[in-house]
Amino acid sequence: MNDFFHSLFEPRRIALIGASADEKKTTARPQRFLRKHGFAGEILPVNPGRSEIMGEKAYKTLDAIPGEIDHAYILLNGKDAVAALAACGKRGVKVASILAGGFADAGAAGASLQDDLARIVRETGIRLVGPNSIGTVSSDPPMALTANAAFAVDKLRAGTWGLVSQSGSLIGALLSRADARGIGFSRLISVGNEVDLAVGEIADLLVDDPKTRAILLFMETLRDGERLAQAARRAHAAGKPVIAYKLGRSAIGQELAKSHTGAIAGSDATFDAFCRRHGISRVSMFESLVDVPALLVDRPPVRGKRVAVATTTGGGAAMVVDNMAMAGLDIADPPQALVDWLRPLGIAAGEGKLVDLTLAGAKPEIVAGTIERLLADDGNDAAIFVVGSSAQFNPELAVEPLLKFAQSAKPFAVSLTPSAEKSLALLTAAGVPAFRHPESCAEAMALCLLRPSPQPVPALASPARAALDALAAGRVSGFDERRAADFFAALGVPVAKAMAIPDAKRIVAAVTEIGGPVALKILSADIAHKTEAGGVALGLPDGQTAAVAAREIEKRVKAHMPNARLEGFLVQKMERGGLAEVILGFRRDPLVGPTITVGLGGVLAEIYKDAATRLAPVDESEARQMIEEVKGLATIRGYRNLPRGDVDALARAIAAFSALAHEAFADIAEAEINPLLVKADGQGVVAVDGLVIVG
Amino acid sequence: MNDFFHSLFEPRRIALIGASADEKKTTARPQRFLRKHGFAGEILPVNPGRSEIMGEKAYKTLDAIPGEIDHAYILLNGKDAVAALAACGKRGVKVASILAGGFADAGAAGASLQDDLARIVRETGIRLVGPNSIGTVSSDPPMALTANAAFAVDKLRAGTWGLVSQSGSLIGALLSRADARGIGFSRLISVGNEVDLAVGEIADLLVDDPKTRAILLFMETLRDGERLAQAARRAHAAGKPVIAYKLGRSAIGQELAKSHTGAIAGSDATFDAFCRRHGISRVSMFESLVDVPALLVDRPPVRGKRVAVATTTGGGAAMVVDNMAMAGLDIADPPQALVDWLRPLGIAAGEGKLVDLTLAGAKPEIVAGTIERLLADDGNDAAIFVVGSSAQFNPELAVEPLLKFAQSAKPFAVSLTPSAEKSLALLTAAGVPAFRHPESCAEAMALCLLRPSPQPVPALASPARAALDALAAGRVSGFDERRAADFFAALGVPVAKAMAIPDAKRIVAAVTEIGGPVALKILSADIAHKTEAGGVALGLPDGQTAAVAAREIEKRVKAHMPNARLEGFLVQKMERGGLAEVILGFRRDPLVGPTITVGLGGVLAEIYKDAATRLAPVDESEARQMIEEVKGLATIRGYRNLPRGDVDALARAIAAFSALAHEAFADIAEAEINPLLVKADGQGVVAVDGLVIVG
Repeated sequence: MNDFFHSLFEPRRIALIGASADEKKTTARPQRFLRKHGFAGEILPVNPGRSEIMGEKAYKTLDAIPGEIDHAYILLNGKDAVAALAACGKRGVKVASILAGGFADAGAAGASLQDDLARIVRETGIRLVGPNSIGTVSSDPPMALTANAAFAVDKLRAGTWGLVSQSGSLIGALLSRADARGIGFSRLISVGNEVDLAVGEIADLLVDDPKTRAILLFMETLRDGERLAQAARRAHAAGKPVIAYKLGRSAIGQELAKSHTGAIAGSDATFDAFCRRHGISRVSMFESLVDVPALLVDRPPVRGKRVAVATTTGGGAAMVVDNMAMAGLDIADPPQALVDWLRPLGIAAGEGKLVDLTLAGAKPEIVAGTIERLLADDGNDAAIFVVGSSAQFNPELAVEPLLKFAQSAKPFAVSLTPSAEKSLALLTAAGVPAFRHPESCAEAMALCLLRPSPQPVPALASPARAALDALAAGRVSGFDERRAADFFAALGVPVAKAMAIPDAKRIVAAVTEIGGPVALKILSADIAHKTEAGGVALGLPDGQTAAVAAREIEKRVKAHMPNARLEGFLVQKMERGGLAEVILGFRRDPLVGPTITVGLGGVLAEIYKDAATRLAPVDESEARQMIEEVKGLATIRGYRNLPRGDVDALARAIAAFSALAHEAFADIAEAEINPLLVKADGQGVVAVDGLVIVG
Repeated sequence: MNDFFHSLFEPRRIALIGASADEKKTTARPQRFLRKHGFAGEILPVNPGRSEIMGEKAYKTLDAIPGEIDHAYILLNGKDAVAALAACGKRGVKVASILAGGFADAGAAGASLQDDLARIVRETGIRLVGPNSIGTVSSDPPMALTANAAFAVDKLRAGTWGLVSQSGSLIGALLSRADARGIGFSRLISVGNEVDLAVGEIADLLVDDPKTRAILLFMETLRDGERLAQAARRAHAAGKPVIAYKLGRSAIGQELAKSHTGAIAGSDATFDAFCRRHGISRVSMFESLVDVPALLVDRPPVRGKRVAVATTTGGGAAMVVDNMAMAGLDIADPPQALVDWLRPLGIAAGEGKLVDLTLAGAKPEIVAGTIERLLADDGNDAAIFVVGSSAQFNPELAVEPLLKFAQSAKPFAVSLTPSAEKSLALLTAAGVPAFRHPESCAEAMALCLLRPSPQPVPALASPARAALDALAAGRVSGFDERRAADFFAALGVPVAKAMAIPDAKRIVAAVTEIGGPVALKILSADIAHKTEAGGVALGLPDGQTAAVAAREIEKRVKAHMPNARLEGFLVQKMERGGLAEVILGFRRDPLVGPTITVGLGGVLAEIYKDAATRLAPVDESEARQMIEEVKGLATIRGYRNLPRGDVDALARAIAAFSALAHEAFADIAEAEINPLLVKADGQGVVAVDGLVIVG
């Protein structure tokens, strides 16, 4: 446990700098909430104009406080907040939090103030939460150091889920939503602008927190991705699910996150790739953040996706099934043992996939017997019971008999079709994952069964000498297509056979060696757009034709750009027999780092946005998953008896290309191969064109 | 108002056939619930073994009851239920409902019993709800004729929404969910297997029901589509929104609906087409059924999709924005007048699209002033206010000031980020549409702004003589490709130029007339697979080549199928210059009737399932919307400077093809043109191949 963990979540002496005596003010809330929820330590209000606030002795200045201070909550704005942090740093306060916004979230002037905060952190070693942090809360022992209005709640409910939020008000919203369901949190923290402590480091602390069994994240951006990745992996090893809701799924949402927080939301696909790589469960419905954890906590990932569904309400269960099917789950057939057991009870359960007990089966012994048989069956990987109207006023019929399955080895969840608060509370208290919405029930079950475990980061061998040389050459002279091709070839991606020749005299020999047809391209660092300059000829069948074409190219280029220095020609084999054209893209994402994208070439694939993105590097196995994920690549995976493409060679090429993630290539910002032709099975792939952007 | 409306929803004398005196039994519930909720009429229990049940005089038989009976609820099973219905019919009971399932929902034996019910309805004129109906409920005057456990609720809340459900238990679930939000219903009815009264007819009744202002449907299938279409159109004219949730969005869900109810769910795309044509708002989230109506009731469809968003919680509002953007809405910029008004109050609202008042702006006068200025602005079409933590314990700050906007001319909704029951109740009671989930808030606003009005059903001219002749010819001899082409041409779809010639001698003249290159195909009713039989030659440049090819075709075909009668050749112009290949499909859907689908040809479009479906016929304007909806057709709509295709000609062809919906063509089950080539703008479209299936 980091030594500042206790100062952060379990401080004994808290200074409130700028505490107000006016109970209506936001700056009075931390003191009120600390006391209201039974904080047992010392509260030390600092206010130059008061000697007492709400019954506590107040201090004129921070320095007037004797002894050590674990945590200072700075309730001042702008420069006053900066000065207060400096004072905290100077006197050795271990952790400070700053409530005010108006820093990097508010333009250039604010950004400069935020720089001051960062400097103080660097120079004094104080740990900082915020600015723009609405507070930090622990439930046991109680410590509600927050200005969020939701903490006016009568009782701060204890719990075992830790919540880290980049949006301050959301800790209150989630507290209230969880509380309404009888669920509490171990910790809640608003990290604000994350000048120092960011989501990843807090999550990492919670992995080691014995009071926390699940880590929930509400995210607008990602500032310490590496640390969060590490935390997620450690959390997985510790059996603690990490569950994230992230804003910015739409373009407008991304823009908004930027204007709202001064931070970039990043592309949604890259964040998904990040979650997948590191084993973070991402939810799409807000309510899922409080609904989903119960099904994931203390439950190792399951292999299999067959869910058995029983119910007393056919319509209610059908909604759950519909949503689960859309999420990619299968519905298991009822086990024969159950069908046989139900038949003499007058319940016909063998007709469809759903075990519909109907109103007539809403009896404790029938419900319990049904669940027992479902959970004992090898034909499913999880079970759901959907309760109908009886759940509202008669929990004894079909809800109470479910409580004993809380400890089932197999995932088991209950979905309530009516509004049935009492049943929900019973199930929650007993530890049975229970859902009010068919959508969040399906989302939870899909995450429970399909969520990825953290994937190993493939080891990257040291780059080949040839790749380093090609990169060095490209750095000096720019990556023309010859150098890009050399570089990709050195990485291990097959490229179209090509030769650079200094002048047209060598052309016949070159074509003979390469084999026609060829493409001919003028080589010149001065000509960016070769086609427009007349510097390209395609489909030349033999050396003679190519020689003629070369002379015409020279003529055209000289007419078009008389001053360009010509360095000869690139003679490239025209590749044929491609069953599919693939685009490979590499990019260093500002939030998640190196990423690789595999898509289908062509305008249609672009329109359909049909691509798979992963963190780079990937190994061949993950590359194969990417190929599976690109819908349009079904054309080379055996769809409708179309000839199969060389998927193995494609996977090798993707993995080789993704080695751009190696730090030796850190100055490559982007690279693309477009197209990479995929030939018939066994005949390989070949890169025809590509580019490398250094910067 | 139909004369049986009162017998259905406001009966004065109700017989309960098979009423139980054992309060624990389901069959005792209707009597309990009628009395509990203050039914003021007469309850007439029928039970051969009792003279009194729960204080009411009981009758041994139906016939023992004196006087008229408005509504009989039959609580018996199987054959007893059939006999009871017969007795009701015989003695002139106006409406009967049957509780029991076990009819068409339960295999062949049940289906036969259901046929008996249908016969009794036909022969006696009694109107029937069910079988498999859990009841019919009115709130004012109260009439809770139901066995659904949810009606054990203390007080049946009055309201103005009518709910029609094919799933019985869902009326209870929705009652409880609405009740928890302070919302009541005017009517709730479970229509069960719809032997007689089905969703459409009930909805049609509710259009004329002065107590109902919105019509909600929970659907598993669609049995009386035409009647529902009529009801939806009349509802639109009456200013009553029709809002539907339908199961069967996934393939598994569709299968389930079938096994569960014996009914087919139909394709989801055709149901969407049905809703769009007739102006039904379809929701995707279950909770939306009780959340969405408030925003649609008494509000004519709006033209425009710009939503202004203000908030006290940036994160909470960002969730709403993200979901709205994904649903196709735009976010409006804050009006300058608002920015200017907020600045001196210390609130910087001009930075992004979101007006974030922050914690500091959670004050009644700031909130009210903000909403006033948003609603007065021409730059948006609707406004949303997203309330943060203050909503939970301090509704006076940012919720109460919203109440006065209930009657705003512009759509105005409130989304609550925390769980805030009191605020929700305040808003709901005041008539301000309020939402607990960012997802359902976005869904409601998208429906409010984007929902279609009922589209006029295009008038179909009488089919051309030529089309009727071609159809008649096809009926007699089958639709070979020549007859299919003739038929499509007669409908007004341009088809590739072609001539049928009796033998190879005429071929040179034919090619001269048509112009090469041509395709040559053997004509023979005996050869189904012409290519396999060697009966096709493509790309023949001139008459000579074609003549040679014709002789080879004859040789090959005679060798392959010596006994086939040969009827000559089809000489067809090989069409070139297509910028896109389109598939037009026509199908008579068992639920919604004639439909037309426009998709992009080729294997990729098939993989991406990129197609637009509408009820047929469509006019050119709707055809143009379909073209817009097919993503891959961006390639001919000017995407990335690609040459534009002849979209007008395509729209004309789609509209012409959709005339297959005319009743003169009622025996055409399916038809397809594949491909229809779309040429450059101004150069038209041409059908190359197609098929017609009569049956």
